[in-house]
Amino acid sequence: MKNPLLVPELRDYLESDNHEALGLFLDSGHPRVIAEFLSALTPTEAWQVLGTGPLSLAAEIFSEMDEWFQADVAEILSRRELAQLVTEMSPDDRVDLLARIPENRRLRILSALAVAEREDIRKLSSYHEGSAGSVMTSDYATLSPDLTAADAIDKLRREAPDKETIYYAYVVDEGRRLIGFASLKDLILAPAHELVEEIMNEGVISVRVTDDQEFAARQIQKYGLIALPVINGGDALVGIITHDDAIDIITREHTEDLEKFMAIQGSHDAASYLRTPALTHFKNRVLWVVGLAAAGLVSGGILHHFEATLSHLLILALYMPMLADTGGNTGSQSATVVIRALALNEISAKDMLQVLGKELKIALMLAAVLACVAWIKVQLLSGGSPIPGGFTLPQVGGAIVLALAIQVITSTLVGALLPMGAARLRLDPAVVASPALTTVVDITGLFIYFTCARLILGV
Amino acid sequence: MKNPLLVPELRDYLESDNHEALGLFLDSGHPRVIAEFLSALTPTEAWQVLGTGPLSLAAEIFSEMDEWFQADVAEILSRRELAQLVTEMSPDDRVDLLARIPENRRLRILSALAVAEREDIRKLSSYHEGSAGSVMTSDYATLSPDLTAADAIDKLRREAPDKETIYYAYVVDEGRRLIGFASLKDLILAPAHELVEEIMNEGVISVRVTDDQEFAARQIQKYGLIALPVINGGDALVGIITHDDAIDIITREHTEDLEKFMAIQGSHDAASYLRTPALTHFKNRVLWVVGLAAAGLVSGGILHHFEATLSHLLILALYMPMLADTGGNTGSQSATVVIRALALNEISAKDMLQVLGKELKIALMLAAVLACVAWIKVQLLSGGSPIPGGFTLPQVGGAIVLALAIQVITSTLVGALLPMGAARLRLDPAVVASPALTTVVDITGLFIYFTCARLILGV
Repeated sequence: MKNPLLVPELRDYLESDNHEALGLFLDSGHPRVIAEFLSALTPTEAWQVLGTGPLSLAAEIFSEMDEWFQADVAEILSRRELAQLVTEMSPDDRVDLLARIPENRRLRILSALAVAEREDIRKLSSYHEGSAGSVMTSDYATLSPDLTAADAIDKLRREAPDKETIYYAYVVDEGRRLIGFASLKDLILAPAHELVEEIMNEGVISVRVTDDQEFAARQIQKYGLIALPVINGGDALVGIITHDDAIDIITREHTEDLEKFMAIQGSHDAASYLRTPALTHFKNRVLWVVGLAAAGLVSGGILHHFEATLSHLLILALYMPMLADTGGNTGSQSATVVIRALALNEISAKDMLQVLGKELKIALMLAAVLACVAWIKVQLLSGGSPIPGGFTLPQVGGAIVLALAIQVITSTLVGALLPMGAARLRLDPAVVASPALTTVVDITGLFIYFTCARLILGV
Repeated sequence: MKNPLLVPELRDYLESDNHEALGLFLDSGHPRVIAEFLSALTPTEAWQVLGTGPLSLAAEIFSEMDEWFQADVAEILSRRELAQLVTEMSPDDRVDLLARIPENRRLRILSALAVAEREDIRKLSSYHEGSAGSVMTSDYATLSPDLTAADAIDKLRREAPDKETIYYAYVVDEGRRLIGFASLKDLILAPAHELVEEIMNEGVISVRVTDDQEFAARQIQKYGLIALPVINGGDALVGIITHDDAIDIITREHTEDLEKFMAIQGSHDAASYLRTPALTHFKNRVLWVVGLAAAGLVSGGILHHFEATLSHLLILALYMPMLADTGGNTGSQSATVVIRALALNEISAKDMLQVLGKELKIALMLAAVLACVAWIKVQLLSGGSPIPGGFTLPQVGGAIVLALAIQVITSTLVGALLPMGAARLRLDPAVVASPALTTVVDITGLFIYFTCARLILGV
């Protein structure tokens, strides 16, 4: 996000070298707000303005800038400047930044960092993408169980400037094993001389570094946490994930679910719509549409199989799109509702029969209504034209309406079955992409349509 | 969520009247965890277990139960019991609970409450659903500007048990106007005798009671806040929205977006999939599918208009589904990508031309690939059969492939245009439901198809 509102003033200050005004500006609001104002400048200008404040504030504002603007600013910095900035950034933010810098430059910056930072970055970036480890930060506050409440508060106060949060502190033993948790509220409510081990809560909710990041975010949501501790295979505390990261993870996962459902592949972590080249967009989309087009060979084959029926009774061709559309619409409705209910844990894979029973009821009602609508449509559109082969409009219309009703029921059930089946196979229900469903529904629909015509009309 | 793991033990304790064990159980973990164990019991049993703990703990655990289980428990309580429980609950939770209780019972419970609680509930429930006011809570901590840091911490410590959070405190003047904000971290880092008005941050990020709840949640996300103050028309502080509510709001809004996109109406706030009667599901879905079926009259009319062409060249009917499907797939892909980019603020309504330019490039590439696929399909499916009217397969295939290419370009652009247009009109881009898009694409597709056939083949 850019906010161009202050561009003229900031440029004036820069030209007149008014360091005092620029310094005041940097401190005049939430770092995110300042970052949006600076993002409207050129990267060089933005860096000049940042340079007028203390490095810690500059790093904080820089961290709030959009990823692509961060990359643009990083590009114009000298190796030394960038190393200093990276050192001041919070561990999770700096790992993200470095991941977006070309490799040879990254290596040169890493070599300019202190050993401790370098080691921390190496550890944090070693976790598999999408895991809890890959989104955690290592700036968390720890307490040892034998501190008093007053000493604990004192320790948190001293460490506050360097920690992501001091509202939650984690109690670890000598081996850094996570044994408890105390909130700052617990500590200030406790008598000053009570020991941390008496104050702390022992049933700490935590995740492992290898757990899925969405699982971690959902734990934060479920328990209303400000931060969630992350432990390694040996139960040692290695990081925390904070509430603001949880919201970002959930937003990202929702987007990915929608995209899976709409059959678009590829991750969009690093770049925005306008920054992604058309060719990349093309690559993300082409595989699915070509695959679906190839799957369309099946429905094409079915149509060819029934070519004789069609040439006998062309009126059937005129209502093919209606059947396909209605089947597709009812199928994606039930799929959406079921995917949502699975996502919110309202149902699970073992509720298959209950879900199918309920969808069957809904489908019967929808089929009755849509059959009436289809009957009216047939009267309106084909009422005047003669029908070959000695058939009457009620006969042909009856076959079409019956096919439509069966199609609505089938596609509603298929729409519910596919995500339930995926859930049972422990696959992501959202992979049952809407276009894939449409293709399945198309194929069954053509079969139903021509079978009804054959049985009722004998063509 | 239910967790049946402890049902046998809990029933044993209840039967043997083992109050001590039940009391220990209630205090043995996060209230949410306890709530899940209790939800596997009957409402009567759950209430018996809750009764063994202090009322404040019972209210906390009760608040963590699923809405429907809360309603079931509330139903078996006496008016007096329910009034006591409601009094102990946090203001936002109790307003939600009361909203789900039948009106005559609700009025009787309200009359059993103290005047202050009643007034608080009346105020909180007066805000429009979906507004920031409707999701805020009134248990927030305030400070006056002339307190010292030490006194402020002391006040927060005393009030901690009754407040939603004490990590953020809001500074108000005599008229309760919000003039600043101080985090507990600011306060413990400040010298003990510094005044709150010197410590506080003046540029407080806040929302108005009438602002949209999603806007409020996005502010919490954007600025990484633990809580966001809500002010009324006179700038007086009236409530806060906390970080955990923000995650819930965002999850709910995502679901609603997906449902809008999939053309399902109705809110699911109160009930889960399995608890909602089939008839309600039917009502939520029927309007849209009937509307779309009615809109299908247009494409039906077009097909009738071109009936003569079809009867001349039946082969055209065989490829109609391919055109419709491919158009629908490419259209919903571009719509999904654009809706997502709009939702994440990567683009805005004024980027219309840039977006169309990019989608045009992508569409040209997709059209080229899909035209090749279509050409192969025509050769495979119709290669052997004779074509009437003296046409050759390359002629007919050429018309089909050309129509498909134009259809891919048109539907990709329409898929991008609809959400961009909605955004420009300040409508929700997600209302451009996928089935509605399919209907538009179907209609344009049929026109393109038969126009190409007429121009190239002269039929």
